[in-house]
Amino acid sequence: MSERRRERRSALAAAVGAAGADALLVTRPVNVRYLTGLHSSNAAVLVRVDGPDLLSTDGRYAGTAEQVASDLELVIDRDTAGALVGLAADAGAGTLGFEPHDLTVERHAELAALDRGIAFKPLGHPVEELRVVKDEDEIALLRRACEITDEAFAALLPSVRPGITERALAIRLDRHMIDHGADGLAFDTIVASGPNGAIPHHSPGARELAAGDLVTFDFGALVGGYHADMTRTVAVGEPAAWQRDLYELVRRAQQAAVDAAVPGAEYRAVDAAARDLIAEAGFGDDFTHGLGHGVGLEIHEAPLMSTRATGKLVDRVPITAEPGVYLAGRGGVRIEDTLVARTGGPELLTKTTKDLLVL
Amino acid sequence: MSERRRERRSALAAAVGAAGADALLVTRPVNVRYLTGLHSSNAAVLVRVDGPDLLSTDGRYAGTAEQVASDLELVIDRDTAGALVGLAADAGAGTLGFEPHDLTVERHAELAALDRGIAFKPLGHPVEELRVVKDEDEIALLRRACEITDEAFAALLPSVRPGITERALAIRLDRHMIDHGADGLAFDTIVASGPNGAIPHHSPGARELAAGDLVTFDFGALVGGYHADMTRTVAVGEPAAWQRDLYELVRRAQQAAVDAAVPGAEYRAVDAAARDLIAEAGFGDDFTHGLGHGVGLEIHEAPLMSTRATGKLVDRVPITAEPGVYLAGRGGVRIEDTLVARTGGPELLTKTTKDLLVL
Repeated sequence: MSERRRERRSALAAAVGAAGADALLVTRPVNVRYLTGLHSSNAAVLVRVDGPDLLSTDGRYAGTAEQVASDLELVIDRDTAGALVGLAADAGAGTLGFEPHDLTVERHAELAALDRGIAFKPLGHPVEELRVVKDEDEIALLRRACEITDEAFAALLPSVRPGITERALAIRLDRHMIDHGADGLAFDTIVASGPNGAIPHHSPGARELAAGDLVTFDFGALVGGYHADMTRTVAVGEPAAWQRDLYELVRRAQQAAVDAAVPGAEYRAVDAAARDLIAEAGFGDDFTHGLGHGVGLEIHEAPLMSTRATGKLVDRVPITAEPGVYLAGRGGVRIEDTLVARTGGPELLTKTTKDLLVL
Repeated sequence: MSERRRERRSALAAAVGAAGADALLVTRPVNVRYLTGLHSSNAAVLVRVDGPDLLSTDGRYAGTAEQVASDLELVIDRDTAGALVGLAADAGAGTLGFEPHDLTVERHAELAALDRGIAFKPLGHPVEELRVVKDEDEIALLRRACEITDEAFAALLPSVRPGITERALAIRLDRHMIDHGADGLAFDTIVASGPNGAIPHHSPGARELAAGDLVTFDFGALVGGYHADMTRTVAVGEPAAWQRDLYELVRRAQQAAVDAAVPGAEYRAVDAAARDLIAEAGFGDDFTHGLGHGVGLEIHEAPLMSTRATGKLVDRVPITAEPGVYLAGRGGVRIEDTLVARTGGPELLTKTTKDLLVL
């Protein structure tokens, strides 16, 4: 991986030079991890157009940094960004790019107050842009995270029956993932039963499943920093006609989005592939969020797949496709896969059946 | 609690007025929660010197916001801060305070670009200052979180024996807390055995406990948003003389800090009470962090208890006291309680014995 990380920093340095800066101060933790391998709450990287890159962290992470980023010059300092600004000034940098979506107004003022004769320039989100397209090592971690997610769901199904609480089901899913190879959870597991299914981000609570419920599970495993994301909705007991119809609608919409997720497709066109079907059926106002999002070192990352998104899919971009319909007081259906846009057609990473399971 | 939150907002409004602003835009999620009860990743509050306060969040949290903050005027908007800035301008605000440690350079520029004739003024950390002193409802939640933490440790002790891995022990602690009333974990559990005990923030891994190890456990339960924090070090099998001596040193230092944690004591004096004993014994350089920190809606919050801290304890300030000595390659000892500074003497919230347990 260290060769890959060097390539990422080289690509970034070229972008920084093209933007007219001498170096980029990277402070957003997930971006530091992407560029160096170091996972730390206090670290920063200086990516230089000319000259070696520097990694700064504090004493707690020094040993780890030496292991994972042995090809980088290491600066141990509690004030990581301040130390790198000082070294950049020592090396004669005139213009220093920074991440305006990470640096707070307070931190920015503190760095400017060092008064080292450097002009600070917000450079947009260049690391996030680089992260959109994944390499095969990254996709392999996503694939493994999704496998664990599929396995946890299969193991859970016998427990999905009237009388068990949402919270108990969530805990079982979580524990299965941890016991079978996950480093952690990709995000807080959602289990939304019956009327709670109308709340897209419902926190699993004390409600007991009842016959006639639709139950939505949205969860994923975390492996090597990479996040799986899968949603399935199942029926407890024989579903009513409206429930079956709603399920089949969302299922068709989700499949249409998966089929549309090919390199060259506009993000909004992939969203529209699902949304148009749902709108035609009269539920357009009940699909209250975007189709999906990029997924990788963050559970939500670029690209956003929504009606207002601009841009096109390219090869090796992992995204989610997760249309949902939410009917207040009655319940909801959401179906979601993690998939990778590929030249040869989408690669589904989550493989659990999308047939309606009646449990 | 809603009466308490109204009082908090009134106290804040007075501070904002004294600082020469018409209102404060609160965007830091934990501060929004403190002032309104709403726990959301996208919310903001406008606390006004004159006129009613406003809470903004997006559609996902609208139902929850109506329940927990029924006394506040609710503004549903995806751009929560932008919506509140617009309403402040409509109401004639000239100077709007903001939280410079939360607002990023990018967000600040976006709000300024709304060009509504408002002067934006960084107002320091007034909500964090207000949060230092807890009310009895908050302390009751901390007490309950610490009880669950104590119980989980008691339940774990029979499992602490040669051959079990750090990770297996961490998972057992975590599950016991969740199964016995915790809403979640206060932070990622640390289990550091043998030489790993020299790493203050060691991630529990595949190392198996062996006879002769000291093992440090640092963990806590989360209840109603409030964080417990406790550390104990135990011996696996009969400890060597150096291990017993080191333990007794840290124990005496920790007790000295607890005894010093009374209203009126300077933060640095409480730190020094422990640090001086450790330094006299020749281990000053091996106590590599501050004595402790405030604890509440965040696991680390004001006041910081360190050699460089300025300020004094007052009644009803919960802090941790956690001296540690770390000997590279050999191991370490850390002992930590969560306690509340009280006029009548410190109230220990974590009650597990600090006698050296030989397991």
